Amino acid sequence: MVPGTKMAAEMAQQPRVLSEFNARRAGVVANVRAALPDPLVGVVLVARGSSDNAAVVGRYALEAACGRPVALAAPSLHTLYNVDVDYSGYLVVAVSQSGATPEIVTVTRRLRGAGASTIAVTNVADSPLAHAARATVHLGAGDEVAVPATKTFTAQLAAFAAIAEASGPVVWDDADWSQVPDAVAAVLDDAQPSRDVAAAIGDAPGLITVGRGYLYGVALEAALKLKETTSILAEGYSAADLRHGPIAVIEEEFPVVALRTAGAAAPDMSALCDQLRARGARVFLAADDPAAGLPLPDGIAEPLATIPAVVRMQQLALELARHRGMDADAPRGLRKVTPTT
Amino acid sequence: MVPGTKMAAEMAQQPRVLSEFNARRAGVVANVRAALPDPLVGVVLVARGSSDNAAVVGRYALEAACGRPVALAAPSLHTLYNVDVDYSGYLVVAVSQSGATPEIVTVTRRLRGAGASTIAVTNVADSPLAHAARATVHLGAGDEVAVPATKTFTAQLAAFAAIAEASGPVVWDDADWSQVPDAVAAVLDDAQPSRDVAAAIGDAPGLITVGRGYLYGVALEAALKLKETTSILAEGYSAADLRHGPIAVIEEEFPVVALRTAGAAAPDMSALCDQLRARGARVFLAADDPAAGLPLPDGIAEPLATIPAVVRMQQLALELARHRGMDADAPRGLRKVTPTT
Repeated sequence: MVPGTKMAAEMAQQPRVLSEFNARRAGVVANVRAALPDPLVGVVLVARGSSDNAAVVGRYALEAACGRPVALAAPSLHTLYNVDVDYSGYLVVAVSQSGATPEIVTVTRRLRGAGASTIAVTNVADSPLAHAARATVHLGAGDEVAVPATKTFTAQLAAFAAIAEASGPVVWDDADWSQVPDAVAAVLDDAQPSRDVAAAIGDAPGLITVGRGYLYGVALEAALKLKETTSILAEGYSAADLRHGPIAVIEEEFPVVALRTAGAAAPDMSALCDQLRARGARVFLAADDPAAGLPLPDGIAEPLATIPAVVRMQQLALELARHRGMDADAPRGLRKVTPTT
Repeated sequence: MVPGTKMAAEMAQQPRVLSEFNARRAGVVANVRAALPDPLVGVVLVARGSSDNAAVVGRYALEAACGRPVALAAPSLHTLYNVDVDYSGYLVVAVSQSGATPEIVTVTRRLRGAGASTIAVTNVADSPLAHAARATVHLGAGDEVAVPATKTFTAQLAAFAAIAEASGPVVWDDADWSQVPDAVAAVLDDAQPSRDVAAAIGDAPGLITVGRGYLYGVALEAALKLKETTSILAEGYSAADLRHGPIAVIEEEFPVVALRTAGAAAPDMSALCDQLRARGARVFLAADDPAAGLPLPDGIAEPLATIPAVVRMQQLALELARHRGMDADAPRGLRKVTPTT
């Protein structure tokens, strides 16, 4: 089989998966709303790996919607240190594509026992995680066999958007949702920009990806996909975090993939790109601008615009693997379900 | 001036800074206790850069002590997106060595306005951050001029431990506190292991640092210090996160600095080290074992043992800069106060 075939096939299913999710979105929102604590005092997200990157995107939409603090859990507090906690009044959203990562299941059980209302976001309806939680948001992405998660990841972003809708006012509407599948299809049908950037990155040992706000989690996911498919030393940052020290690694010709879409974070991203170019970095801009090296669709509300943006990053990871003659489907030493405890 | 002289001088002041902090700790605890909401529903930490790494360490001690969820803030929600939030019942701990990073000050003001009880942790008593918060924990580390934060970082770890004491039961006692300054001095007086590991790392383009639980934030800080002082592509992970994909970058001879001290996370770290060696990685172990490549003091409760552990990592960063002929005091393009908004 041609290397990367499975990953490419699963990427290609994303418009359909997202359309189907949108078609049953009202039901998802109603189920989540029924599981919300009243009053809601805060939200805690539990995840690892690419699911954790989806949670980083989701926390922005969730905190903006519900108006209460959103935390990313430290699982080991509950799996290793067994701390005594009170999570009453909290919504806990546990995210695992397989629903089988032991630590995510354990944390969900413990936090439910500590008073939280728990929701599982998973692609496997009959999984240990779904059984551990009070309610389930099913991703409905179908089997995913390539190790790098793609269609389950974008379905997770859709799930977080639906959970945000259930918890308060949001800045997007049905018209934004209806644009997402076509926007994803447009990116998938236009692979040449990713091929060109992959060729320009070539055999660079390292790379930085950077976004801000909603696109920060997309930058993290881009770095993870690039590491998984090519073993490049890719690290993702927020624009602000990058300036607080790590920018020291960026010297002449260092490749940086910068993400920007219309919204409150765009001016800061533009300023960062100027700063990076002044250091001599090679900046590959992914932006809702047809002139960008990695063009993204425009006209979609910023939180949902993360979905086509991450698809562009998946495509870049796949193309860089192809350019390097590597098999994106099966990275060295990785399994589809990582059994961390 | 000899390169790295200022950083070395500031590192050498840490035993004294920590002793002085411990001497006024009871007052710090009383001040924090007076600022706690009643009831406390959760805690949110606000920080960037190395202060954010201190917060990652601190969140473990804080959640274990207060029994309520602890979140790391997403500053842009409040500085760029201006979301409407209700933080009543929350303790917000804002951490900035200079007390002058604009976004940290802005977030503190906004969250105080949204009902939070706010505490500033800063080294500058008359700073904008101290004025923005209801109460201040002063680090008392004295002027820090080298760009890589060292003595202010370990003072922040001490401050988080004191804040944890104010918010609930903790697993350490006065005897543990009294050991910390001597433990730090012992590491500082024993630089040869760090020199040897620096020589072994040599001119490797990349490196991974890894810890779990309390030492996860120390791994993040180690990676940041190494990036700042040498521009090496160093990335820090928790043991669990590393297994969820990024381990793909670890090939034959790849250098990994692994942190382990006695406690609930130690078996998982030992298992990870075996897994990394099986992939062919060169594992440099920092552990409370005299036979470790980077020995750490033993017999200190795990949360406070992070302090000498991070000093060993500062020393490694300084020695790697010396080995590479670089000036650790003044990384290219970094300033002491990073004006992110």
